[in-house]
Amino acid sequence: MKQSLAGISWKAFSGMEVKDKAAYLAEDGVFHVLLAQQFDRARLENLGMLATCVRRIAKKEEGMTFLRSLLANRRAMLYFSQPSSRTFLSFCAACQILGLQIGEVRDTSTSSEFKGESQEDSVRTFSSYFDLIVMRSQIGGLAERMAWQLSNTERPVPIINAGSGKDQHPTQALLDVYTLQRSFERQGGVDGKTILFVGDLARGRTVRSLAWLLTNYRDMQLLFVAPPELQIGGDILALLDRAKVRYELSGDFESAIPRADAIYMTRIQDEWDTAGESQKIDTSKFWFMSRHLALLKPHAVILHPFPRRQEIAVDVDDDPRAVYWRQMRNGMWIRAALIAAIFRKDADILSLAERFV
Amino acid sequence: MKQSLAGISWKAFSGMEVKDKAAYLAEDGVFHVLLAQQFDRARLENLGMLATCVRRIAKKEEGMTFLRSLLANRRAMLYFSQPSSRTFLSFCAACQILGLQIGEVRDTSTSSEFKGESQEDSVRTFSSYFDLIVMRSQIGGLAERMAWQLSNTERPVPIINAGSGKDQHPTQALLDVYTLQRSFERQGGVDGKTILFVGDLARGRTVRSLAWLLTNYRDMQLLFVAPPELQIGGDILALLDRAKVRYELSGDFESAIPRADAIYMTRIQDEWDTAGESQKIDTSKFWFMSRHLALLKPHAVILHPFPRRQEIAVDVDDDPRAVYWRQMRNGMWIRAALIAAIFRKDADILSLAERFV
Amino acid sequence: MKQSLAGISWKAFSGMEVKDKAAYLAEDGVFHVLLAQQFDRARLENLGMLATCVRRIAKKEEGMTFLRSLLANRRAMLYFSQPSSRTFLSFCAACQILGLQIGEVRDTSTSSEFKGESQEDSVRTFSSYFDLIVMRSQIGGLAERMAWQLSNTERPVPIINAGSGKDQHPTQALLDVYTLQRSFERQGGVDGKTILFVGDLARGRTVRSLAWLLTNYRDMQLLFVAPPELQIGGDILALLDRAKVRYELSGDFESAIPRADAIYMTRIQDEWDTAGESQKIDTSKFWFMSRHLALLKPHAVILHPFPRRQEIAVDVDDDPRAVYWRQMRNGMWIRAALIAAIFRKDADILSLAERFV
Repeated sequence: MKQSLAGISWKAFSGMEVKDKAAYLAEDGVFHVLLAQQFDRARLENLGMLATCVRRIAKKEEGMTFLRSLLANRRAMLYFSQPSSRTFLSFCAACQILGLQIGEVRDTSTSSEFKGESQEDSVRTFSSYFDLIVMRSQIGGLAERMAWQLSNTERPVPIINAGSGKDQHPTQALLDVYTLQRSFERQGGVDGKTILFVGDLARGRTVRSLAWLLTNYRDMQLLFVAPPELQIGGDILALLDRAKVRYELSGDFESAIPRADAIYMTRIQDEWDTAGESQKIDTSKFWFMSRHLALLKPHAVILHPFPRRQEIAVDVDDDPRAVYWRQMRNGMWIRAALIAAIFRKDADILSLAERFV
Repeated sequence: MKQSLAGISWKAFSGMEVKDKAAYLAEDGVFHVLLAQQFDRARLENLGMLATCVRRIAKKEEGMTFLRSLLANRRAMLYFSQPSSRTFLSFCAACQILGLQIGEVRDTSTSSEFKGESQEDSVRTFSSYFDLIVMRSQIGGLAERMAWQLSNTERPVPIINAGSGKDQHPTQALLDVYTLQRSFERQGGVDGKTILFVGDLARGRTVRSLAWLLTNYRDMQLLFVAPPELQIGGDILALLDRAKVRYELSGDFESAIPRADAIYMTRIQDEWDTAGESQKIDTSKFWFMSRHLALLKPHAVILHPFPRRQEIAVDVDDDPRAVYWRQMRNGMWIRAALIAAIFRKDADILSLAERFV
Repeated sequence: MKQSLAGISWKAFSGMEVKDKAAYLAEDGVFHVLLAQQFDRARLENLGMLATCVRRIAKKEEGMTFLRSLLANRRAMLYFSQPSSRTFLSFCAACQILGLQIGEVRDTSTSSEFKGESQEDSVRTFSSYFDLIVMRSQIGGLAERMAWQLSNTERPVPIINAGSGKDQHPTQALLDVYTLQRSFERQGGVDGKTILFVGDLARGRTVRSLAWLLTNYRDMQLLFVAPPELQIGGDILALLDRAKVRYELSGDFESAIPRADAIYMTRIQDEWDTAGESQKIDTSKFWFMSRHLALLKPHAVILHPFPRRQEIAVDVDDDPRAVYWRQMRNGMWIRAALIAAIFRKDADILSLAERFV
């Protein structure tokens, strides 16, 4: 596999703008998965199609047996120094679907565990034993640095960023897009739809990444509804301006609901509070309650990246437009598709899929 | 699979008496495993027979290969929010024998891990990625509630209760019964035997569950030998009265030993102490020492659910009547049998077993 | 499998000198792996050859599939009460290469987890569910005692010592020797070479074990270079004297470099400090910097057991003589070879290897 990051200096790479990094990573198929931005529209569509093939093949026993054989000779390292059982288990299941064997380190204090060695040495250690590294860290940009490092060794091993710092969590963005793709399959696709984002838009990295990826689609309209303190940041709006995507900001949830084709609900990210400031904000006006279902279009869908607190009432779950549980399962399928693509097994899957449709 | 719990309200189910719940769960084969009481005599015998078949098949390489193929396309989630390495590893091995792949969360503080989401959402998350959930929790009744919840979703997934609160640990009871079945195989079975329970009978959930299951057998005699403070509870005795099972209470261990066909030893459950009260009780009169072996019937057996402290001297281990290590291994076999039954693989196993006997 | 430890008393075995224990363990093929000393030259060569075969077979897909089938019906327990992610992951990968399924307990406080039961009962529990136990513990001699115990039960299960206390870490010594064997493959092998040990020679168990194993080779010369406080212990020197191995002690790193065929760098083991004494020692004179590369023989090699701190500059990594990353990967291969040998799969591997060379 050709390594795009081999041969550039870290200084040159790390100094690039996000979109240049993205272009760089996208240059030669999927290898490292670091940034939501490295997926353009064609890649998003291909990956969604691949995920759907995996999902359909897995409906039959013989299909599951085929999938498990694909990467049975490969081993994946799940390195989660920032705990996240949901993302961890989703990757775990995705690996198992494809037959990959798993090694894991889940610990908040890797420093103690690796006796003061550098992150570089720890990750290179993993690359000695495994064929893929899925990593999650509270340190922004760490996955990028590790990917660059490994690409410049004798044994380059692909890295998937499963969340690093406040900024990037690309596979979450991919599963959100995939859920929209599936939801609008019979409504002409994602183009032209109105997406309503609700909740903590200032600090949720999922909202930021998804907004970015939606610039790949035509005639989108984005509505950002939040308390003033938690509204979407100017940097994202500038980005939408440049991409000529229409958007509106508002504090009025109820009047926005009827306009939405999809509602993306989010929880208050109070782990980023510095002095308990979230507690002073009345967010109850931004909760989706069962009475709101009557306002919702018949074919609209409600998404949520989870975990959920009070922002969606539990009795909404039974409505067919509440697709957030399906969205969670989509995370498993899209991650399986992504891993298959990294190891160039996409063609095998697509050619088999015809027998299962 | 028909879901017995689908369609009833939680209020109706949770308000039932144990025996009504049990009948309800037993209605349609094995699906959720929540209560010892859901296993009547026929189910106990079938499950024991199935465990013996699994055990025999596993003696040969080709048999092990067959077993591993049975559920190779299934994934199990082991969710142990209350730590228990022994039960965990036993389920782990049982899954591996059948080829199931495993995801795991073992943590004392699930709340921190799942960022304040409800237990319902956490367990439904697991059901998105896995085909079976084995759960252990310090919260009484939690497994029941989760089973009810999942049975009422689009993606019902079976739950096995691996210990919840003070009350239920049904797979421990199953392995105890299976050990008695095996031990008395050449002595006409469990019917008519005298079972001596020793130790902390007030607080051990294993004693309570086993006593209940023994009401399925004829002409049993149960001897409960313990210090007065740790004697068996009146609720169990009332149950035995209703089932017309003979029993005796005593504080004299040595004179009970010669009467026993099986001795079920237990440790002091001082984790339930509120003010160190166990330390004031002299339990040493209830320890099985090597000198007691001379008092024991030649075909009697000694069981212990483990962990052991001082209540059985280590040099007793070498006596062939000390079956507690075999009992531990039985736990693996009966759990494998149970999982196979849940996924309706019992017929496959039974039909193959003929070639291996 | 014949059990060498069955039938001796623990008192007799534990009272033996290391070399007598070693001879005893080596008596009948590989079973328990407890001591570096149980590997004589013939065993070291056979094991190295086996590791090389595994490594070559694993280069091809069909080879990997063959390897994974070898022990697919076996289960290994990784019991790491002393945390060590590196050794853990290396064993994990080694097991996966051979198809073994894994159960694990990684915890610093096993006491809490096993509710006050004895180590003997815990390990015997593992032996109930698994076919191999890999254990790491801060308690010196624990692996030996557990091996003796299991060899004297109905269900003997092999134990691999993955580090116990200050003394023994035999698989680290094996991977070090294997790295020397590979490095000198085209230079007439290990015999006659000069090995330079640098750093904390007083407290590093890897240095002690490797020095011992090198007494198996002819015409060796060992150079020990360290600050006076961290020089090699008199017990090792006495051993080298008895084995007639030439050695020198020195505090001058730079002048030793040009003489070395291999340099074995080690970090300061300050976790054994009693009062921060390491901080008073200037170790910077014993760091390998890029300027030292010019002093090094063209075919010499640099090893390090890892983790590394400052004792090797990161820019040395790119020199082809820096073999410590390959050494790390050798750990995976030699452990896979060892496990294969324990289960008597060596012949299968050797006979297949011919097709892959």
